[in-house]
Amino acid sequence: MELLRTHIGTSLRSARTSQNRTLRDVARQARVSLGYLSEVERGQKEASSELLNAICQALGLSLASVITDVAHEIKTTESVKLVVVDAA
Amino acid sequence: MELLRTHIGTSLRSARTSQNRTLRDVARQARVSLGYLSEVERGQKEASSELLNAICQALGLSLASVITDVAHEIKTTESVKLVVVDAA
Repeated sequence: MELLRTHIGTSLRSARTSQNRTLRDVARQARVSLGYLSEVERGQKEASSELLNAICQALGLSLASVITDVAHEIKTTESVKLVVVDAA
Repeated sequence: MELLRTHIGTSLRSARTSQNRTLRDVARQARVSLGYLSEVERGQKEASSELLNAICQALGLSLASVITDVAHEIKTTESVKLVVVDAA
């Protein structure tokens, strides 16, 4: 089962690491705790919509671009699973 | 500020009403309370990823299709706001 928070976390972590930024840096700028951001990135915590926006802003990304990326990732993962089921 | 939960709620409500289904029907099938579904649809509560999946399933929709719709809606709203700012 694909979980939205897993994909959001992966997308945020990928954006942060591609910018060569630390959890500490992004967490400080977004005004969230380092532990919170780390849990969100690992898909262990649901980010509230307000804090998701703060994290997107800290990364210089629009919410639209993050959610578009997430939609694409979920679609790809769901398609791969369908292919595997078909092949079974 | 665009909130993810507002767009998710709008998308779920739109899917449900286009299927001519009641909150009660979808809530029962998704095994969530009617009050919870109603709050999620109105963007007043963050749906957990697990319950979002249950609601999508009850509506016969993939998570990917709902999030793709949400991404499109956020993009459109953000674009409209940019145009309004430009025109101001």
